[in-house]
Amino acid sequence: MPNRSSAARDHAALVNLLRSRAAVATDPRERAERRFEAGRLTGSAKNLQPWHFVVVEDRVTLQKLGALARTGAHVAQAAAAVVVAVDKTPFAVSDASRAIQSMLLAAWADGVGSNWVGFGGLEEVKTLLGIPAKLDLLAILPLGYPARAVGRGKKDRKPIGAVAHRERYGQPFE
Amino acid sequence: MPNRSSAARDHAALVNLLRSRAAVATDPRERAERRFEAGRLTGSAKNLQPWHFVVVEDRVTLQKLGALARTGAHVAQAAAAVVVAVDKTPFAVSDASRAIQSMLLAAWADGVGSNWVGFGGLEEVKTLLGIPAKLDLLAILPLGYPARAVGRGKKDRKPIGAVAHRERYGQPFE
Repeated sequence: MPNRSSAARDHAALVNLLRSRAAVATDPRERAERRFEAGRLTGSAKNLQPWHFVVVEDRVTLQKLGALARTGAHVAQAAAAVVVAVDKTPFAVSDASRAIQSMLLAAWADGVGSNWVGFGGLEEVKTLLGIPAKLDLLAILPLGYPARAVGRGKKDRKPIGAVAHRERYGQPFE
Repeated sequence: MPNRSSAARDHAALVNLLRSRAAVATDPRERAERRFEAGRLTGSAKNLQPWHFVVVEDRVTLQKLGALARTGAHVAQAAAAVVVAVDKTPFAVSDASRAIQSMLLAAWADGVGSNWVGFGGLEEVKTLLGIPAKLDLLAILPLGYPARAVGRGKKDRKPIGAVAHRERYGQPFE
C-alpha cells in the first residue's frame, strides 16, 4: 500500500488531469505525456509501480502488433499504441490494470479513443519489442480517433442489482 | 473483449461521469449509485463483468473490517466501505482492478476520499460478509472525507524515463 496521503494526492491529481481537458486532441499521438502521467500517478501496492510502457508509432511495428494480437487487428490502423508489460510480482496485474484504466480514461478525456487489447498472442509481442523474459505482457492500448461518433446506445451490462449487495452478500442493494 | 463500439460508449460515459461533478458531496455515503455506475461501465474481457460489490455502512461491521484488514485500520472510521469480490476466472483480477480504479476516481471527483485496501486478512472478510467460497476477495474501498487537505506534495514515483520506452524496450522515451 502506498501511504495514504500520497495516494490521496495522486488520486486528486488524476481526477484533475481528467477534468482539465482542452478541446479535442489534434493528433492521437500528442499528449502521450498526459497519458503516462495518468498511469504513473495511479496507486500501487507497496508503491512498487511494477509497470513498463512501450510507445509504438512506427507503422510497420503497428501492423505487426495488429497481426499478432488475436482480438486487436485494429491496432494495425491505430495512430500509435502503448504496450504494457509488468513485473512477475504478486500485485503487478492489479496495479497495472488500474494504471491502464487511468490511461484509457485520460485518452478519452482528450478525445482520443483507446481500448484494452489482450490476452491472446501477446507472448510473440515480447520478442517483437525486445521485452525481457522476466516481464509479462499485459495489454496493447491502440490510440486513435473513434471511427464512429460515440453515442448513448444500449450498454450490454448486468443490472446494478446483479452485482451490488447491501451490508452482506445476497442482501438486495436496491 | 467487449465489442469496440460498446467499449467506446462506456469509456465516454465514464469520462463524462468524472467531469460532471457537482460541488463537494454532502455525505460520503451519498452518490453510491454514481460509484457503482463507474464500476459497472468499466470495460471487461469478454464482457463477463466478474465483479461483486458489497456496500457496508453499519458501524459495527466497519469496525470489524478495520480490525481484519492488515493495512486498513482506517476502515473502522470510514463513513462507508465498498467490498469488492471477484469470480475465480482468468481475467477477473484485471477487470475488477479497472472497475475499482473507476470507482476510486468517481469518489474523488465527488470530493470523497478512498483508497485500495488489500491484500492481507481478506479471507476472514468473506466469512464476515457471507461472501461465497467460489469468489475471491480483492479489496476494501473505505469512503470518507480526506482527513487533511490534499496538496501538491512530492510524489514518490519513478521518473517517466524509468518506466517508458520508445518503439522498443530499452530505447529511451525522452
